[in-house]
Amino acid sequence: MSSQNQPNLRIPGPVPLPDDVLKLAGSQMINHRGPEYADMLDRMTRNLKTVFMTQNDVYFITSSGTGAMETAVVNTLSPGDKVLSIIIGAFGERFAEIAEAYRADVNRLSFDLGQAADLDKVRETLKGMSNVKAVIFTHNESSTGVSNPLEDLCKVIHEESDALILVDAVSSAGGVPIAVDAWGIDVVATASQKSWISPPGISMVTFSEEAWKAYGESTTPKYYLDIQQYEDYRKIGQPPFTPCLPAIFTLEFALQSMVDEGIENVFARHHEIAQHTRDGAKALGLELLPDPKFASNTVTAIKLPEGLDGKAFLAQVTKNYNVILGGGQKSLAGKIFRVGHMGWVEKSHIDEALKAAEETLKSMTS
Amino acid sequence: MSSQNQPNLRIPGPVPLPDDVLKLAGSQMINHRGPEYADMLDRMTRNLKTVFMTQNDVYFITSSGTGAMETAVVNTLSPGDKVLSIIIGAFGERFAEIAEAYRADVNRLSFDLGQAADLDKVRETLKGMSNVKAVIFTHNESSTGVSNPLEDLCKVIHEESDALILVDAVSSAGGVPIAVDAWGIDVVATASQKSWISPPGISMVTFSEEAWKAYGESTTPKYYLDIQQYEDYRKIGQPPFTPCLPAIFTLEFALQSMVDEGIENVFARHHEIAQHTRDGAKALGLELLPDPKFASNTVTAIKLPEGLDGKAFLAQVTKNYNVILGGGQKSLAGKIFRVGHMGWVEKSHIDEALKAAEETLKSMTS
Repeated sequence: MSSQNQPNLRIPGPVPLPDDVLKLAGSQMINHRGPEYADMLDRMTRNLKTVFMTQNDVYFITSSGTGAMETAVVNTLSPGDKVLSIIIGAFGERFAEIAEAYRADVNRLSFDLGQAADLDKVRETLKGMSNVKAVIFTHNESSTGVSNPLEDLCKVIHEESDALILVDAVSSAGGVPIAVDAWGIDVVATASQKSWISPPGISMVTFSEEAWKAYGESTTPKYYLDIQQYEDYRKIGQPPFTPCLPAIFTLEFALQSMVDEGIENVFARHHEIAQHTRDGAKALGLELLPDPKFASNTVTAIKLPEGLDGKAFLAQVTKNYNVILGGGQKSLAGKIFRVGHMGWVEKSHIDEALKAAEETLKSMTS
Repeated sequence: MSSQNQPNLRIPGPVPLPDDVLKLAGSQMINHRGPEYADMLDRMTRNLKTVFMTQNDVYFITSSGTGAMETAVVNTLSPGDKVLSIIIGAFGERFAEIAEAYRADVNRLSFDLGQAADLDKVRETLKGMSNVKAVIFTHNESSTGVSNPLEDLCKVIHEESDALILVDAVSSAGGVPIAVDAWGIDVVATASQKSWISPPGISMVTFSEEAWKAYGESTTPKYYLDIQQYEDYRKIGQPPFTPCLPAIFTLEFALQSMVDEGIENVFARHHEIAQHTRDGAKALGLELLPDPKFASNTVTAIKLPEGLDGKAFLAQVTKNYNVILGGGQKSLAGKIFRVGHMGWVEKSHIDEALKAAEETLKSMTS
């Protein structure tokens, strides 16, 4: 994968970075309250809006993706607010836990691991509820390799409620289309180390007019993630708090590159490499965990043969082939492996990873 | 300052980084849930304890320093808790605002800009209060170049109360001694882009047994900054959330370097360069803002001649000399300039900065 014999890092983030991006991450520090930063922030803001096809506000926060999910919650909800939490895996559950931590009245609608949210069940559930303040869910469940049908889901939610739509798109945004305005999404949360070809350190959110109205009513305590501070400082071309400059430097470059490439081309590229991964896994006789209709374009979850020691499998793949795959989490631990294919990834990276899996499976089952 | 003619960045953080550190910041991504990260976290934890002379727990969080200050507040306080907030400048005020945002009953004890906290007044104030849950303050007020007498302050607080001591040491820790255990400090907050010779992205906290007791009673909502999550994951050698790897790579190196150099030597080095800066400013006939007894060893605040256009001064220093100085904040805007000297800094950096200030002042007043 590189001249320095680096491992082929195929976990679903942090994504491996090409040399020119690594060089940017290692750039000298600048004054984050100076004109150079203001210029960067301005360009990043415009380009991020282009990727999200939105006129809504967008902000850059120094935190992991979980911080962005918390930003969505604390800026729009108040204790006692009724929330419908649609859960198809570990990250959807985390989103519910965040809302609960801030005392929202969280109602869970859960689906089997490997499945996407069922639109009819969502519709039925919303029909049976009143005064739902927000519907929250994970777009792309990287723990199961499943993408929820975001456009259709938003349509059903808007038809059946006046609820805000808060979306954890940490592992999908930048790799698959999210038409924030057309689909009416109030807050989208994502993070630099995923499809954005950057190191971890910066999370990003979009924030709609409806979200701002909810902000005005929110009594949830907040400070570091208080979106008003980000807005006040954005107006003077500054961050409210010292930002993670290495990820800012790379994000600025990545966002410009995506816009230059054309976002349709970026999304097409992600679709293609995902299909290549799925085809490759099937060609090895392996079964995907997700329902194929909802298989993710940023990470593929593949079932391991029953009875196989999943932990030993991952360790051998790394030891013998210098390939780092993702494992299964919680109840899926040892039962699946995951191949990340977001951001900068070439077919040869995938082929090498699948070859390593194939050879290791052979050696473990022969 | 470097072969690439980089600006001489003399703001009080982010600090400029030497080439070997920049190279580390541009290292390839790794699996943050793998053995390599676990090894790093273990070493960093041990070395950070050494620098803080403590047996208390220490944690690494992906946020700015303000996130670490918020971590101190949300994990130890509950709404209604009585807090004494000692304020000598902008960052002390911020700490009070964070506690207020989370509904603590904040009592402010403020001192004039340029002064440290008066120990007698702190004693007197505490004598007049009961049931103080926590005393919070900024150790080194980078907005005024003043360091509070931390050891003495802790002594007075312990003599007059059972309050927790929560210290914002964002811009002092790593450059000046903070004997967490000997002085009985419950939470210290700091951040990577200051004396730690790293880019911004990671904040750090220490957490005492008393702080853990307070955690058990705290009803403040929290999730991303919930210290229990950091503790639970530390036990398995992982971060709870994807960490800012560039700053982790550099911090691991910087902490090891500090321990190898000997922390007394690190502190002596900071004292020496600070004295060099103060002497240099005085030699130019300029007056320091702070009371000399409490002048900071990480940043020097210098008064501008009355009537001078401070904004134009900073702009000219940058334009004509490629030196970036800090300005004054809020009521000090235009009245002072600040020279950062924490982390990696040589006398030539300071001399160059002071020379630029001198020449610019000459040209503006002639």
